[in-house]
Amino acid sequence: MPNLFENLPLHIPEEEFKELLSRPGVRIERIVSNGQSTPLDAPYHQAHDEWVLLLRGSASLWIDGEGERDLGPGDYLLIPAHSVHRVTKTATNGPTVWLAIHFR
Amino acid sequence: MPNLFENLPLHIPEEEFKELLSRPGVRIERIVSNGQSTPLDAPYHQAHDEWVLLLRGSASLWIDGEGERDLGPGDYLLIPAHSVHRVTKTATNGPTVWLAIHFR
Repeated sequence: MPNLFENLPLHIPEEEFKELLSRPGVRIERIVSNGQSTPLDAPYHQAHDEWVLLLRGSASLWIDGEGERDLGPGDYLLIPAHSVHRVTKTATNGPTVWLAIHFR
Repeated sequence: MPNLFENLPLHIPEEEFKELLSRPGVRIERIVSNGQSTPLDAPYHQAHDEWVLLLRGSASLWIDGEGERDLGPGDYLLIPAHSVHRVTKTATNGPTVWLAIHFR
């Protein structure tokens, strides 16, 4: 059986995005970060809602109009469509694992 | 920020189902088990696909035609629509936490 915490990439230059399941209107994705953050000049701006759950490691997330907040294991939130947002930091001492549900 | 592992019920007679987000065609749910299993004479039989991820504790899941398998933290699978299935056991030494995505 597949496991969300297996084959976690380490020492990779970019975050890893892995699609776990795709259905009409929804996509489940695992994201693994290793200290990366979203470039200041290239924030995310998505046309769809995204629900994220942090499961391992830690991160900080900035959402335009809402400010920055710290996330630890188990924290989850909805990033509304068209909300400009950035991951401002992720843990540097091991992989940070996210589950993302995209409603598209 | 809400956390998936906060307010975990203990010593409850029934499993707890908590809706985290509902959208047209999809529903995200937290399930907490404390030793419960699905009654032999009342297996699940859903008209929609369900994707489940076990995050804490342990469980065994039987799916008709596929057999029984053990799940630990991080294990995930798709339970196809119309697959008769049962949770045959869940950990008795602490809460078992599932994330379920229902595609309805």
